[in-house]
Amino acid sequence: MRVAVVGASGYTGLELLRILLRHPEVEIAAVTSERQAGKPLADAFPSLRGLVDLELEAADAAALAKRAELAFAALPHAASAPMVRELRRAGIPVIDLSADFRLRSAELYAEWYGPHAAPELLGGAVYGLPELHREAIRRAQLVAAPGCYPTSVLLPLAPFLRRGLVETDAVWIDAKSGVSGAGRKLEQGYLFAELDENCRAYKVGGVHRHVPEIEEQAGLAAGAPVRVSFVPYLLPTIRGIVATLQLRPRGRLTSEDARQVLLDAYRGERFVRVLPPGETPSLASVRGSNFCDVAAFVDARTGSLVLLSALDNLVKGAGGQGVQCMNLICGFDEAAGLREAPLVP
Amino acid sequence: MRVAVVGASGYTGLELLRILLRHPEVEIAAVTSERQAGKPLADAFPSLRGLVDLELEAADAAALAKRAELAFAALPHAASAPMVRELRRAGIPVIDLSADFRLRSAELYAEWYGPHAAPELLGGAVYGLPELHREAIRRAQLVAAPGCYPTSVLLPLAPFLRRGLVETDAVWIDAKSGVSGAGRKLEQGYLFAELDENCRAYKVGGVHRHVPEIEEQAGLAAGAPVRVSFVPYLLPTIRGIVATLQLRPRGRLTSEDARQVLLDAYRGERFVRVLPPGETPSLASVRGSNFCDVAAFVDARTGSLVLLSALDNLVKGAGGQGVQCMNLICGFDEAAGLREAPLVP
Amino acid sequence: MRVAVVGASGYTGLELLRILLRHPEVEIAAVTSERQAGKPLADAFPSLRGLVDLELEAADAAALAKRAELAFAALPHAASAPMVRELRRAGIPVIDLSADFRLRSAELYAEWYGPHAAPELLGGAVYGLPELHREAIRRAQLVAAPGCYPTSVLLPLAPFLRRGLVETDAVWIDAKSGVSGAGRKLEQGYLFAELDENCRAYKVGGVHRHVPEIEEQAGLAAGAPVRVSFVPYLLPTIRGIVATLQLRPRGRLTSEDARQVLLDAYRGERFVRVLPPGETPSLASVRGSNFCDVAAFVDARTGSLVLLSALDNLVKGAGGQGVQCMNLICGFDEAAGLREAPLVP
Amino acid sequence: MRVAVVGASGYTGLELLRILLRHPEVEIAAVTSERQAGKPLADAFPSLRGLVDLELEAADAAALAKRAELAFAALPHAASAPMVRELRRAGIPVIDLSADFRLRSAELYAEWYGPHAAPELLGGAVYGLPELHREAIRRAQLVAAPGCYPTSVLLPLAPFLRRGLVETDAVWIDAKSGVSGAGRKLEQGYLFAELDENCRAYKVGGVHRHVPEIEEQAGLAAGAPVRVSFVPYLLPTIRGIVATLQLRPRGRLTSEDARQVLLDAYRGERFVRVLPPGETPSLASVRGSNFCDVAAFVDARTGSLVLLSALDNLVKGAGGQGVQCMNLICGFDEAAGLREAPLVP
Repeated sequence: MRVAVVGASGYTGLELLRILLRHPEVEIAAVTSERQAGKPLADAFPSLRGLVDLELEAADAAALAKRAELAFAALPHAASAPMVRELRRAGIPVIDLSADFRLRSAELYAEWYGPHAAPELLGGAVYGLPELHREAIRRAQLVAAPGCYPTSVLLPLAPFLRRGLVETDAVWIDAKSGVSGAGRKLEQGYLFAELDENCRAYKVGGVHRHVPEIEEQAGLAAGAPVRVSFVPYLLPTIRGIVATLQLRPRGRLTSEDARQVLLDAYRGERFVRVLPPGETPSLASVRGSNFCDVAAFVDARTGSLVLLSALDNLVKGAGGQGVQCMNLICGFDEAAGLREAPLVP
Repeated sequence: MRVAVVGASGYTGLELLRILLRHPEVEIAAVTSERQAGKPLADAFPSLRGLVDLELEAADAAALAKRAELAFAALPHAASAPMVRELRRAGIPVIDLSADFRLRSAELYAEWYGPHAAPELLGGAVYGLPELHREAIRRAQLVAAPGCYPTSVLLPLAPFLRRGLVETDAVWIDAKSGVSGAGRKLEQGYLFAELDENCRAYKVGGVHRHVPEIEEQAGLAAGAPVRVSFVPYLLPTIRGIVATLQLRPRGRLTSEDARQVLLDAYRGERFVRVLPPGETPSLASVRGSNFCDVAAFVDARTGSLVLLSALDNLVKGAGGQGVQCMNLICGFDEAAGLREAPLVP
Repeated sequence: MRVAVVGASGYTGLELLRILLRHPEVEIAAVTSERQAGKPLADAFPSLRGLVDLELEAADAAALAKRAELAFAALPHAASAPMVRELRRAGIPVIDLSADFRLRSAELYAEWYGPHAAPELLGGAVYGLPELHREAIRRAQLVAAPGCYPTSVLLPLAPFLRRGLVETDAVWIDAKSGVSGAGRKLEQGYLFAELDENCRAYKVGGVHRHVPEIEEQAGLAAGAPVRVSFVPYLLPTIRGIVATLQLRPRGRLTSEDARQVLLDAYRGERFVRVLPPGETPSLASVRGSNFCDVAAFVDARTGSLVLLSALDNLVKGAGGQGVQCMNLICGFDEAAGLREAPLVP
Repeated sequence: MRVAVVGASGYTGLELLRILLRHPEVEIAAVTSERQAGKPLADAFPSLRGLVDLELEAADAAALAKRAELAFAALPHAASAPMVRELRRAGIPVIDLSADFRLRSAELYAEWYGPHAAPELLGGAVYGLPELHREAIRRAQLVAAPGCYPTSVLLPLAPFLRRGLVETDAVWIDAKSGVSGAGRKLEQGYLFAELDENCRAYKVGGVHRHVPEIEEQAGLAAGAPVRVSFVPYLLPTIRGIVATLQLRPRGRLTSEDARQVLLDAYRGERFVRVLPPGETPSLASVRGSNFCDVAAFVDARTGSLVLLSALDNLVKGAGGQGVQCMNLICGFDEAAGLREAPLVP
């Protein structure tokens, strides 16, 4: 299948290419970048030299739709919606990796991101977390791949919400992300000399844009509004998210019970690994892979339920998840191109 | 003043030496290490070459007490208590950096660490957190320097507990530590190839040994039992702790109110910096220094109080705090030897 | 094809597994580890959980030869030779990743490593650098995969030696390696707290064990003895080697000429990338891949020829190179399992 | 003594402040920054909060000269010369940390940096490497603090050149620098996600601007022209330079002889540490300190002399060296403010 990657010059675009290059069913038909149009892809990404022979081009939806049967959009939010609209009008399915189609309400979107450029598409967009919405994704023409933080939070959390096992008025989340989550931005805080040997919280107090996305999806799982206190941290790593969720169980719950909830929920899933009792998820064990590792503990002293997760923000948190959705849409093996072992050490 | 450093071959010992070498009132009279006795200190720590001309020796409390007026014990827990007893019998004040005298009850100690070797000293030991126990430290002959995690938790937390502003039955803590907090242990998980680009939780579920210490001191501040859900993480950094505390306020509280509580509590303190509104503590800003930076936020969506802190685990979390206590005991300027600017970048 | 990995519990073993798991022609039939025999592979390497269902076993050459058609030996030097002998006696081809069969003379081996346990096999062993010895590898039953440093040195160097373009009495080499090159050893110098933000030379003065290997292979390329001054450095990275070689050209040489020598030598090679003029090899661009990037410069002031290279020590410097040799021996596509894009960022 | 720091918002400026804040004889009278004028210093550098109460101001040489008795200029090259001229006209001694007064010839400067804005001052400027030019520095009114690479090269090299022990037509240098050497520039290559786990050479082929500075000073030491082949690398560390120099001795030389040359040259020096036989300099051992560690080896196979050095580019390579020069000019203890132990671990 011929696919186009629109917005291929950022880290998400590069990761998509890395995965698509090994995908047995895919041929990369076009890669676009407004700023670097005309440049060989291998000049933009020296790591790809010898592996591809493509040139970056300016995005033209109609032309792309003729050369590709499906498009990934890896553009910044707000920039994505208009391009997605054009691609959809040109008739090909789109997997959007921006935030533009993740929330179901244009009002809520506007509150957090500004006016929505293609609100008419929101109704048909499917939230691209296969472990929660597999069947809808299979039938979708527009998939909104989830944010990296929401994926790390929803995978351990949803099973408990669905079964009504925890209070929904307060979920304490502390999530730590490697710097590639911020993209390839030139900001002082992302300089090596500022970030190495450093770690800090940011956007504290409920102001991170992934909060409404988490709450909306968590609410769907719970069948009731969910409120989260979300504290994100910037880690001195390139990749990866590790998240802690602390919750109040509604009844008595042991660590074994809690682990069983996860096992029941993810039996047969190929990308969610429920760790053995006592083990904790680590970035290294998922590096470069589409896995999300999860674990559950109950604090014997306080009764709190502690959920932990780890994933690679660029794979299961972005490009890999997008490809997983593509596999569903196209009827490929859901794991095609995605069974690579993590890069350890 | 002549001081001895007992157990000088670990990271805490080295850090003590680094600080004591610049202390205007101190002469290092003796440094001990059982395994490396007879070795020049500069052979054990090449960084100190040219700065000291001392030899590591086996520890002999009576002999040390003749040559030194005060001793720091930087030994592992359990190994420390017997040596501290001998040093106290020999008549000199001791600042112990192990866990052996931090808890007030030998029973509680036994639960977490095993039988206590010198329980008769527990009653007289003072918990060495100057911002909470300054006057008692001034009069102490035996000071138990706090753990690094407890310092990072108690400094932001105590003011709220003292004023009864938060619920005490549940404090959600997520604390991240650089690897030097584990000492110089040869364990696979501390190898560079295992830890770089990695991050993981450990000892989840209320089983970390700093939990009873936090709860005991928090309880003293609150005048009531306090329960914490404590999740520690290992960061890919050499130094530093950043902690998140999430709490439920008893009444309405704004971010400004919360910050004011910290300002009121730490007015005049020279090592606790309450950050400007909106700023978050970072490891880099305290690296190599005795500062603990703190900040408070209220999550507008959930009403949760979010407290943040950052410190250098080897300074304010160990050696620096010990020296601060020594300064109090000896009547020196409390900040002597401790006003060094952080090493940034 | 069924393959066995003997000595699967170190970093080289893990890397082999990572590559073999995606190899289209290979089934991993057995994995061995003396210390961890009986343990599921996924317990030894949590990253592999969900990808393999194998158990580590003690190595029994005869039994392995029944279940596998080819064996990789990823054992420490000296431990490897006896096991390789048994595997060869049992009749299957062996690709050895230790140093035991890299030197052609048992005397030279003894000088650097101690007595050789299977000297009778040295004559038939082939040095497994496909770009230099492809045809011999195709016919080999015992391949000695080169050391990581020698690979990084020989690939840029050999073309100049073969054409007699440089003096052979002095090659100044400064090579920097990530710490995984030292394996999974528990040594203090490999602890994160000792190595992060650090860098140092080691084994300076011609005493590194890769020196005779480099000189022997360089000598074969030159048709005359070659002497190298080799200075290795330990980098604060997990993976990768970057090497600088400085040489004296025999005649006039420009940067363009020098680059052309590399282009001529590696035309059609799929794992050696000659960089565009002015670009320098970087670890990131080869991370996790089987590429070796090379570049040549002539210093306009001194006339020195400067050769640069970068590779991933665990892939092109170990496991990937081994698999490339296996592909040649077995008549598979030489690049099978090895065309993965580097993990960037 | 009251000093001004002109250009205080970069890493070199910050490092100067860190050192001057602990200097027993110094009061910081003024700090300037054109872009951040009006901002409290602690806002620009949160690490300094609680330690200083200064405001950044626009630089006005005449006004500064009234308030300060000496100025440090930590401006970019080309920007520095005009400001230095004004400060000198206003009558105070200046220690310049830019490249503007390091070369003695305006023509040579122009070749590498562009036209010189204050060539009339070149004659009076003294190259601020105290171990080579101590007496001249004592009498200087304008000191050009050396570049970080040249310091790392000249300290091990000069003793051999002075005694005519090595060939001068070819010195092979491979020097590796942490990223703070590039200042606080917002360039993609300095982003954490691009640099961590990475390492690469840059400006290869004799085109790095420190080449003429090294050759000029080396030539002065040798009494004859010296040519160097200089290959710089960017390390994934914040601070530090480690350098390898490979040379051809003129006669027979053993490692012991070579070490003795260094010992003879640096007897009594307080910031150059000649390491014990067999030890190699490391970044960690000098981190945050004014030390330069040096070692010498002779390669038994090739006879090459291998010189190694390590220093902290921001201290002995910039701010610390500047302060050492100030101490000489002002008649303070040469080590005042500079005897801090390295930050290890």
